[in-house]
Amino acid sequence: MRIVVLAGGIGGARFLRGLRKTAPDAEITVIGNTGDDIFLFGLKVCPDLDTVMYTLGGGINEEQGWGRADETFHVKEELAAYEVEPTWFGLGDRDFATHIVRTQMLDAGYPLSAVTEALCHRWRPGVRLIPMTDDRVETHVVISDEQGRRAIHFQEWWVRLRASVPAEAITPIGADEAKPAPGVLDAIERADVVLLPPSNPVVSVGTILAVPGIREAVAARTVVGVSPIIGGAPVRGMADACLTAIGVETTARAVAEHYGPGLLDGWLVDDADAAVAEEGVEGIAVRARPLLMTDVDAAAGIARAALDLAEEVR
Amino acid sequence: MRIVVLAGGIGGARFLRGLRKTAPDAEITVIGNTGDDIFLFGLKVCPDLDTVMYTLGGGINEEQGWGRADETFHVKEELAAYEVEPTWFGLGDRDFATHIVRTQMLDAGYPLSAVTEALCHRWRPGVRLIPMTDDRVETHVVISDEQGRRAIHFQEWWVRLRASVPAEAITPIGADEAKPAPGVLDAIERADVVLLPPSNPVVSVGTILAVPGIREAVAARTVVGVSPIIGGAPVRGMADACLTAIGVETTARAVAEHYGPGLLDGWLVDDADAAVAEEGVEGIAVRARPLLMTDVDAAAGIARAALDLAEEVR
Repeated sequence: MRIVVLAGGIGGARFLRGLRKTAPDAEITVIGNTGDDIFLFGLKVCPDLDTVMYTLGGGINEEQGWGRADETFHVKEELAAYEVEPTWFGLGDRDFATHIVRTQMLDAGYPLSAVTEALCHRWRPGVRLIPMTDDRVETHVVISDEQGRRAIHFQEWWVRLRASVPAEAITPIGADEAKPAPGVLDAIERADVVLLPPSNPVVSVGTILAVPGIREAVAARTVVGVSPIIGGAPVRGMADACLTAIGVETTARAVAEHYGPGLLDGWLVDDADAAVAEEGVEGIAVRARPLLMTDVDAAAGIARAALDLAEEVR
Repeated sequence: MRIVVLAGGIGGARFLRGLRKTAPDAEITVIGNTGDDIFLFGLKVCPDLDTVMYTLGGGINEEQGWGRADETFHVKEELAAYEVEPTWFGLGDRDFATHIVRTQMLDAGYPLSAVTEALCHRWRPGVRLIPMTDDRVETHVVISDEQGRRAIHFQEWWVRLRASVPAEAITPIGADEAKPAPGVLDAIERADVVLLPPSNPVVSVGTILAVPGIREAVAARTVVGVSPIIGGAPVRGMADACLTAIGVETTARAVAEHYGPGLLDGWLVDDADAAVAEEGVEGIAVRARPLLMTDVDAAAGIARAALDLAEEVR
């Protein structure tokens, strides 16, 4: 079986770990969001790709969900001592090595997809991880504060401001002109099913779908999504702030309708949102079950349910 | 009093710490060797500049003489796990931060001299530290081994091979076309005395003197050197391997004659080489005294003796 997953960071990575467990023989291709990517200290940082790679490769900080296990922060301490900005992004020493290798390879002319493959040669995530594009796409957020109305990098809004200032707009700059990375469209076209894990529908899955060609290719397949919203709140992160910015309510139903029947064939909601399954969503098969990924087995159960629903709606 | 010092790494840095102590009111300009500089993992590493900066700024690993105190090596461990070469150069996590800041500033278009000044803003070394040039100069060493006759970077010969393979030639590539960094010639021309600390006469002091214009400017001043050779052996490091490569004996006399009376006015040798002082070196005033820099006070005593000799020969 060939499965494609459009993944953001923590939610996508944990779902994938479950999927790999429940479908050990499947050929899994992960199309990773790169809209969160940022240059820090001259180094190219790809938070979502790394979270997937570290989580599936056994190097993740389990409690935190991102960054490396057994981490130290001496480089960051020293950069702060040099008064180099920004100080609000938490890069650990082990994590820095990944960004150093990546930047060196990019500078040598390798595209991000080739760099990601090389990094995965070490981590052996058990999936094929491809960035959505080799082109530069950066999600920016329009806010208004004491400095006026301005666009800031997504990471500044998300990490520094903790999404505390309302987003007036969220734009994946560069997405319009970006091309899917080599292998992306081919993997989608050959997929038996495309899964949307409980990643942020706006700045993770939405950004991947904003790369021309990807949405159309995905829509042509059997697509099942897992709601990142349970009982009117994001399972983790601040997806509500992103949904509000694009005029979508923070409910399992509203997110399904936002993706729409043109994209989604099936939709898993949590038991807390069983009413959505009972009432139904026009053109989408909805099923309710527990959606908290408390451990790998719970994630595997969710992934299994998504595959079963895909089988059902195919 | 205005003093200029042409410095390599450990020997130069320790001498400078003594000089700063014995001449606290002097205006000291240090012209640092950059021929040892190397790009590692896409980052610009300047071992000699950093050793001076860390030593005078209180951040040096005292036992080792180079690198940072209280250091960890997680970035290096991770780079090795990614199988990225080279693995033989010992960069610590705190040290990496310096190279990251430097590389980011260089990429932004700042010359190395401006970058060095910015880094020193943190370390406050109490001297003005200027790289000999803003241009790229890299010392290469010609060796013959099982791979044939070839030129390798100085650091590969020095650190990886521990100078165990004879150097057939040592060449500061790029020196011919290099220009002294801004402030270098001006500092020398205004100096009351130029001091050559017990740095490597070939790959440290020799490389600085190879930048067109510096040797002539230095030769026009009162110049006193401190022998890096005591009793026929280098005080530290493998200067003998460098001297042999250029056909100079590893003796305090031979090094003085190599610099020559056209450059040197005074020369300090160790008591072990008192015979050199007694016999004299043509055109150079030679004095013997203890030259082991066992601590800061010992280094201060040597620096004081160098200043006294400069006063005498001026």
